[in-house]
Amino acid sequence: MEEVLVINSGSSSLKFALFGHDAVATPEDFHPRYRGHFSGLGERPRFVVQDGEGNARVEELPDDTASGDGFGHEAALHALLDWVEQRPDARRIAAVGHRIVHGGEAYRAPVRLDGRVLDDLERLIPLAPLHQPHGLAPARALSDLRPHLPQVACFDTAFHRHQPRQAQSFALPRRFTERGVIRYGFHGLSYEYIGHVLPARLGTPRSGRTVVAHLGNGASLCALQDGRSVASTMGFTALDGLPMGTRCGNIDPGVVLHLIAQEGMTPEEVTHLLYKESGLLGVSGISGDMRTLLESNAPEAREAVDLFIYRIVREIGSLAAALGGLDHLVFTAGIGERAAPVRARVAEGCAWLGMAIDQARNTAHEQRISTQDSAVDVWVLPTDEERMIAWHTARLCR
Amino acid sequence: MEEVLVINSGSSSLKFALFGHDAVATPEDFHPRYRGHFSGLGERPRFVVQDGEGNARVEELPDDTASGDGFGHEAALHALLDWVEQRPDARRIAAVGHRIVHGGEAYRAPVRLDGRVLDDLERLIPLAPLHQPHGLAPARALSDLRPHLPQVACFDTAFHRHQPRQAQSFALPRRFTERGVIRYGFHGLSYEYIGHVLPARLGTPRSGRTVVAHLGNGASLCALQDGRSVASTMGFTALDGLPMGTRCGNIDPGVVLHLIAQEGMTPEEVTHLLYKESGLLGVSGISGDMRTLLESNAPEAREAVDLFIYRIVREIGSLAAALGGLDHLVFTAGIGERAAPVRARVAEGCAWLGMAIDQARNTAHEQRISTQDSAVDVWVLPTDEERMIAWHTARLCR
Repeated sequence: MEEVLVINSGSSSLKFALFGHDAVATPEDFHPRYRGHFSGLGERPRFVVQDGEGNARVEELPDDTASGDGFGHEAALHALLDWVEQRPDARRIAAVGHRIVHGGEAYRAPVRLDGRVLDDLERLIPLAPLHQPHGLAPARALSDLRPHLPQVACFDTAFHRHQPRQAQSFALPRRFTERGVIRYGFHGLSYEYIGHVLPARLGTPRSGRTVVAHLGNGASLCALQDGRSVASTMGFTALDGLPMGTRCGNIDPGVVLHLIAQEGMTPEEVTHLLYKESGLLGVSGISGDMRTLLESNAPEAREAVDLFIYRIVREIGSLAAALGGLDHLVFTAGIGERAAPVRARVAEGCAWLGMAIDQARNTAHEQRISTQDSAVDVWVLPTDEERMIAWHTARLCR
Repeated sequence: MEEVLVINSGSSSLKFALFGHDAVATPEDFHPRYRGHFSGLGERPRFVVQDGEGNARVEELPDDTASGDGFGHEAALHALLDWVEQRPDARRIAAVGHRIVHGGEAYRAPVRLDGRVLDDLERLIPLAPLHQPHGLAPARALSDLRPHLPQVACFDTAFHRHQPRQAQSFALPRRFTERGVIRYGFHGLSYEYIGHVLPARLGTPRSGRTVVAHLGNGASLCALQDGRSVASTMGFTALDGLPMGTRCGNIDPGVVLHLIAQEGMTPEEVTHLLYKESGLLGVSGISGDMRTLLESNAPEAREAVDLFIYRIVREIGSLAAALGGLDHLVFTAGIGERAAPVRARVAEGCAWLGMAIDQARNTAHEQRISTQDSAVDVWVLPTDEERMIAWHTARLCR
């Protein structure tokens, strides 16, 4: 049996997963045999692999003599290929799927990679200068190392490209819209995955009006009509929408202009401020980690959590308006799957929509946490972007 | 009988109104005797006055020999005082009320002006560099010209200062919040006025959960709980929230950074783009005026109107979440009072909230345009910021 390799490369990490599959009908036909990651790349590299049963172990890293600047992304890719191909239970890799943050306006679905597509995607680097290069580098390297291995790019943006035009547009002059200054939305692979899982749980392909709350270190909400994205909170960049661990979320564009024109900050300083020092960390002054804040008694921690909840509740109202009502609310990703107090308070804020959750089910992180008579069904469904990528990759490479 | 003079000074205009009053219980006890404006200041000045019956006439302007650079704001103030004091039916001016855009964090209500307060308000110029100086200049001049005439400053921001903290906060580091980078909200005098008028129409002081849509050349929405502001769409500046005639409304802060860092625009160019070339004008490429767009058959005009409506509907959802439901929707200001098609389409987008309007009443611009069985009462109530200022001024100067 063949396997699909999924690669998700970040600024100091390279994550991977190896999937087997019995069929290719749905993402849930795919089973992870291994997941793992290289972390601390370029500084203190570490390679951890977890098998299908969840047993994790630290793998030895080869000496890296080729690269002068320590064990970086390129060395990690080589080590990954060696590990994948030389392990005792190795199988043939049928294809490799990559998580690529930005597909621009043109890529409205995953795509088979070739030289032309790679060139095309590299031209999108100005839209996501911090993330796009990391996603593309291993794809480019593999096309040299294993030229006959089929590769697929799966984008965080593609799923949202079918939204109505108004949901994607800023009120900017048309020349800006035409050259790609639009609301891309992100976390698309996560939303698409939930869009497959929810109907399976419901036993009907029509899952109705759903808001998915992807609450992780990055956080956003997406409105799905029968599994299709109709609106989302993230905009042109990953800064917009909800406050996040260290990102500000939605703020008046006039604040950016003020900080530059009146406070004398450079655009680079403002970028750092809004990406790295804001959000839960900025408001609390304590941490960008929700677990730490929920355990803290400091009023500043409480304030950060309050603001996070408040903004989620407001945005659920806005997305319910985009959907013309709400049938389901799904919590997913780190905070969404594990922070019961956050879910409880969001549901409380949405009581006006007829939403009610069962505290015991919520505390137990059950799959469905709403009460029998809640007007909105509330779910906790783990997301799996890698599985979504494996599915797309296998389907495109058959 | 005494009169209250209201002054509203803009970048190239100086508007005024003269109010008489029988009592001071509510703003509706105040009656405009004259309203007027100087327009084209510094370029092609014109002085128009309208009496209480709505008869307008163009007044002659005195030769301006004092000022070297044409007939400007200072000359207009002198001409206004002459006109006010020398007209045949002149009465004593008891006090002057000024519309001041920014009261910062500290001014949570209108205030009597003296030298200290004026100094204080001048320190807020960096928060509204385009508007604050124009508002303050006539107050400063009058304190020299008529030192014994009581003056009052009424702020666009003060009404929103009682919102819950989360509604006012950005997810920025505390040091920014503490030095005033918060959501000020604007159009506060308009919302406060509607907050007085609605209970009077209802015959009860508890007007419940209300969203007011102030849709003029500037546009925003405000959520009122029994007449008190609990949330609004405008933020730190008048750029945020809804798209406006030429302003962008809410956009990803990353767009501003992108335009500067990737497209090489200067902060001044971005400021001009977002304030003067965006909104309805930018999207349509035709006009920032809703009347023109509604009369146009161009698809670009339709697109601008669609986006405007869409964003209003989304924000009403968000504000309904802040209120925990919705009892009343009030349309006011130019577009809100006169554009029946806009009201009809907003109400259609809010059908999910149980809102329904009567097309005949809407077309006739009746005061209450919802159907009998609409779950949300929908109103068309003319706003009157000047009357609100007259009321505050008279109350503070008794």
